[in-house]
Amino acid sequence: MTPPPIDHRCASDHRWMARALQLARHGLWTARPNPRVGCVIVRDGENVGEGWHVRAGEAHAEVNALNAAGEAAAGATAYVTLEPCSHHGRTPPCVDALIAAGVSRVVVAAADPNPAVSGRGLARLREAGIQVTEGVAEGNAVALNAGFMRRMTDGRPWVRAKLAASLDGRTAMASGESRWITGSAARADVHRWRARSCAVVTGRGTVVADDPAMTVRDVADPASVPPPLRVVLDSGLRMPADAAMLRQPGPVLILTASDDARRRAALEAAGAEVEKLPAGPHGLDLEAALLALGRRQVNEVLVEAGPTLVGAFVAAALVDELILYQAPHLMGHEGRALLHLPGLERMAQRLPLRLLDVRQLGDDIRIVARPDHGQED
Amino acid sequence: MTPPPIDHRCASDHRWMARALQLARHGLWTARPNPRVGCVIVRDGENVGEGWHVRAGEAHAEVNALNAAGEAAAGATAYVTLEPCSHHGRTPPCVDALIAAGVSRVVVAAADPNPAVSGRGLARLREAGIQVTEGVAEGNAVALNAGFMRRMTDGRPWVRAKLAASLDGRTAMASGESRWITGSAARADVHRWRARSCAVVTGRGTVVADDPAMTVRDVADPASVPPPLRVVLDSGLRMPADAAMLRQPGPVLILTASDDARRRAALEAAGAEVEKLPAGPHGLDLEAALLALGRRQVNEVLVEAGPTLVGAFVAAALVDELILYQAPHLMGHEGRALLHLPGLERMAQRLPLRLLDVRQLGDDIRIVARPDHGQED
Repeated sequence: MTPPPIDHRCASDHRWMARALQLARHGLWTARPNPRVGCVIVRDGENVGEGWHVRAGEAHAEVNALNAAGEAAAGATAYVTLEPCSHHGRTPPCVDALIAAGVSRVVVAAADPNPAVSGRGLARLREAGIQVTEGVAEGNAVALNAGFMRRMTDGRPWVRAKLAASLDGRTAMASGESRWITGSAARADVHRWRARSCAVVTGRGTVVADDPAMTVRDVADPASVPPPLRVVLDSGLRMPADAAMLRQPGPVLILTASDDARRRAALEAAGAEVEKLPAGPHGLDLEAALLALGRRQVNEVLVEAGPTLVGAFVAAALVDELILYQAPHLMGHEGRALLHLPGLERMAQRLPLRLLDVRQLGDDIRIVARPDHGQED
Repeated sequence: MTPPPIDHRCASDHRWMARALQLARHGLWTARPNPRVGCVIVRDGENVGEGWHVRAGEAHAEVNALNAAGEAAAGATAYVTLEPCSHHGRTPPCVDALIAAGVSRVVVAAADPNPAVSGRGLARLREAGIQVTEGVAEGNAVALNAGFMRRMTDGRPWVRAKLAASLDGRTAMASGESRWITGSAARADVHRWRARSCAVVTGRGTVVADDPAMTVRDVADPASVPPPLRVVLDSGLRMPADAAMLRQPGPVLILTASDDARRRAALEAAGAEVEKLPAGPHGLDLEAALLALGRRQVNEVLVEAGPTLVGAFVAAALVDELILYQAPHLMGHEGRALLHLPGLERMAQRLPLRLLDVRQLGDDIRIVARPDHGQED
């Protein structure tokens, strides 16, 4: 049965989808590595049940919403931020649940990004005689799951690089001193970016210099946040086995190009996992590192490292978003540069960015920008 | 006759003073070296006449407003953003005009900053039996004339330093190339800062490197803006006599520590005025230069110079406001530093700023900040 052409993208569809997106955002820190999904069941213009995907392994958004709606779901419209699944994963297919509940219409924001299954869920719904509307507030739904989408399509995570500097672009004084450049509001904000990331990445240099814990602490309820994978890029496997991050709860992964079995054993004994990868021109092959994280179901990565490693990510065009905190200070030309980006001689070679967000956080400024590779995304 | 204690700082006083301040701002580019002043005459809750000081040598704000009000000024309240003058300058005293018009009350935002005459105008009004209220929206009135206030109290101008850099704090590529770092909206904004300044200051290095005209061009009606004094700090008097700025209309002043009569004659022949000042540790004594500009009735100065000269002004604590344009680009660590500020080794030595304004201008960010010397002003 071919469904009739429908264009129900009216104001009320957008309104209910906005609510579903709001619900999806409740899973921002916890749904990973699954996508953040929200669902609202609407009958006769009333919200009769809503839900979101809280945590991987637990019920999907649609099932939570249908459970809340109960009998009221029959003949209702379901607003879902992502195409309902049609396959058996850790939970039964949501498409079956929607059909069994007797909904008459399903409105979806974004299609499943997995090219192997994209559209299958919607086709199953249509086969069951359910009206389907696609693409309502699609941009918002895609943006909310940029990492999941990127991993499904490219096999690698969405990469954010965090930097903190003075207004004159210095990340440390000439002496190397750098604590703290930014104020408490900016530092707490970093913990929120960590909380939504499947992995936090740093380099061996930062581990040696700062010995950071890299855990999620400065948020409302840290215990409720699944600890992100902490990743150290350490081509030579020289990371100290007594590093602070190895003494904190949560997994640590060391990506290396080294075969040193003794050091590997010492780091594994300290609780780290070690994975060997190909070497790149200046240490580890960064693209290989990201693909390794993609294989581990990492959607979003927060790179918190020094100017050399972040510069290498930027130079390799592997950064999707820069998060730059600027403290209202001048640190002088002898301070350390924001980014190590060699070989930029002429104006035509400078790297363009697109500003997404500029705001004040406490006494500091936060700039979110996206490298502008000349293509809209 | 002692006036009774009055506290009329009610909502309507603030509302009318806001209007007077709005009028004063019409003189932002033209009133200099006089202060920007606005005036509203209010009778029975109605605006019966308003005016502002347009241009030095022409009528003051009070006179323009009284002329507009005519007979209606009798018994009215006059809102003036600055204490009316009580002395004969280029125009007769405004206090006499207010008394002659028969106003019954005068509300003033800021007192005259000149300690020799401050309060005299208000005393004359009170002696004439007029009710006087002071300090309504005082902060706004003072801020609007920060340069005039500074010159009257300290004999030197209010100093703004303009900088343009990439997000990684670079003002030029390693090659020296720097045109253009910012976009057209930011560059037009610079012309608006020039237009309100009595003087635009640069260094001999910038003249040689960029050969700028330093005129006010990119504003709505450039011909209506009195050309700011263009000042070159040139301790060795090595400025080329064929510099572009000497071929543009408007005065040019060269401040030097050199006695070279031949070079002086060549520059004077090219249309510049040359003034000799004491030398400082690294060229000209910058404080002496500012005092020389104060003697020339310069209220606001815009410093548009290279990292060394701007750094010297900052290091000498002579900058009142930094205007920093940040372009959404990365130029790399080999690019030129934002500011030459030697000797800052430890975090405790970094120079704190206070953010006044952060906004996007076209594709760029503009940050206005004030060096925070630990005192509120």
